[in-house]
Amino acid sequence: MQLNRIYAPIQEDLARVERQIKSVTEVDSSGLAELLSYILTGGKGIRPALTLLSGKFYHYNLDLLLPMATAVELMHTATLAHDDAIDHSPVRRGRPTINSIWGEDKAVLLGDYLFAKAGEFAALTGNLRVIRLFAQTLQIISSGELNQGFNAFNLEQTRDQYLERISSKTASLFSLAGESGAILSQAPEESIQTLKGYGYNLGIAFQIVDDILDFIGTEEEMGKPIGSDLAQGTLTLLAMLLLEHYPEDNPVKELFNNHDMPEGDKQKRIKQAIELVRNSSIVKQCYKVASDYCAKACQRLELLPDNPSRRALKDLADLVISRRK
Amino acid sequence: MQLNRIYAPIQEDLARVERQIKSVTEVDSSGLAELLSYILTGGKGIRPALTLLSGKFYHYNLDLLLPMATAVELMHTATLAHDDAIDHSPVRRGRPTINSIWGEDKAVLLGDYLFAKAGEFAALTGNLRVIRLFAQTLQIISSGELNQGFNAFNLEQTRDQYLERISSKTASLFSLAGESGAILSQAPEESIQTLKGYGYNLGIAFQIVDDILDFIGTEEEMGKPIGSDLAQGTLTLLAMLLLEHYPEDNPVKELFNNHDMPEGDKQKRIKQAIELVRNSSIVKQCYKVASDYCAKACQRLELLPDNPSRRALKDLADLVISRRK
Repeated sequence: MQLNRIYAPIQEDLARVERQIKSVTEVDSSGLAELLSYILTGGKGIRPALTLLSGKFYHYNLDLLLPMATAVELMHTATLAHDDAIDHSPVRRGRPTINSIWGEDKAVLLGDYLFAKAGEFAALTGNLRVIRLFAQTLQIISSGELNQGFNAFNLEQTRDQYLERISSKTASLFSLAGESGAILSQAPEESIQTLKGYGYNLGIAFQIVDDILDFIGTEEEMGKPIGSDLAQGTLTLLAMLLLEHYPEDNPVKELFNNHDMPEGDKQKRIKQAIELVRNSSIVKQCYKVASDYCAKACQRLELLPDNPSRRALKDLADLVISRRK
Repeated sequence: MQLNRIYAPIQEDLARVERQIKSVTEVDSSGLAELLSYILTGGKGIRPALTLLSGKFYHYNLDLLLPMATAVELMHTATLAHDDAIDHSPVRRGRPTINSIWGEDKAVLLGDYLFAKAGEFAALTGNLRVIRLFAQTLQIISSGELNQGFNAFNLEQTRDQYLERISSKTASLFSLAGESGAILSQAPEESIQTLKGYGYNLGIAFQIVDDILDFIGTEEEMGKPIGSDLAQGTLTLLAMLLLEHYPEDNPVKELFNNHDMPEGDKQKRIKQAIELVRNSSIVKQCYKVASDYCAKACQRLELLPDNPSRRALKDLADLVISRRK
């Protein structure tokens, strides 16, 4: 199953979201316009698609869903700009990052601009509940990222802490995408909670798979270097399991305990960790956890009216597991 | 005239804003709480005061003005966190900056959190016009800062470009503070425009004085190093006039044309520029420009009902000129 087939029930409207996002690049300042054109390219569109699909079960109102789907995608893009600046990441989506071309200062300000633009689109819904959720979600994301920063290179983290972190940094926005689509289509409260829960669980699974691909993917597929979580000192589920499997002589332990080691030694440890993970049952174990979250995401979809969008949400959950990029 | 006397008509409510801001520090994450407590200290409170005073002419509604005044101050604080991170500034308000203690990554994420918190407070007004203005203002501020970054160390800038830049980066938030206070107190449209215009012109004057104090202030008064605009390559009105006064052998020209010169040489040029400005009529000229904006700010206040807040706004304009910090 491919993304464009999953997107079938909302294909035209998703194209409108893309056009709306393109229109964001039309600003007076040529410098800003260049940055916007560069960064607003190449997203997979999963989050706005989730907003639109979630709006398909009751009163589908594109006048409200279009700005919200746009807001969700712009917020996502803004967080990428800031993440890359903070991590000094050189590559994203197979291209040099904003910070690597224009500097970290520009990446930070561009992110600020996109947050604000996203906020303006959210405000266009005229729905105060959604507007407030939008602002709260950005708080959750940034505090989750802060938390990740405070715990960088910290080996003493529990699985619950891992889940809390990916819940903040990834699932919260998926959750907003689903919940806002439901609210804006006047879904009954129970259905709002169903679609919020779907988004949340899908987001957790999405991030676990992201963390898996950081070990087993290729740079070509991922569009960014492999092993970057370890390089940043981020302890993902895979690294946690690796520590459990090999309590002694563990490259992750060595790396985290001496993270000011020379770059060459770092890369050696990262490679070792990747090899160990690939040759273990860890990947399988992690896919099992992710699949369980996807199953949980889909479980309550039965409560919603049966339509092509419900099918699409189920297919999307399958794709989140099977994706290679 | 001192600030606390000017604040008299709103003193109690401004204290409430302060308490509201303090409550923002009460979060679960101890790391985030520490950062918030550190940064949410020591503001002069001019922007929230402007919101409250602007709300005093028609239906003063603290339930709406309190969250908005809080939003305005939080947005201001967020921009400071990002500005300092971007400029690698070591000191602000007489204390080490967030970035100098916790690193630039934390400063960026803290700023994001504060933007989001500010957005949530703005949403609490329930007023869509104000919420939208809030989001638009953040776009104006960040694009203004980007513009400043793109023009760093550029000698070919006009006075109009300078005004446009300080209009974006400073006056826009003062303008929002005044306009939102008026809107939330159900002021008639003409009065909304008057208070918006007051805020805008006051903001321009405020920034010009800030730029003057960067030449004639002391580090003790300002709580940050003097000459930092030149160090960052920001061409303020004073530097522009200095270039006009001394077209040859100008230290600003030397600095901007060779801004990768050794730090010691840089500091020498900055000191020279400061000396030249202090011994010229430039400071007087710039104060004249700032005073003209303050006069413009106050001009239309006569159209508003006569009350202690109107007097306070006039006094505030005087203080913006006479302040030394």
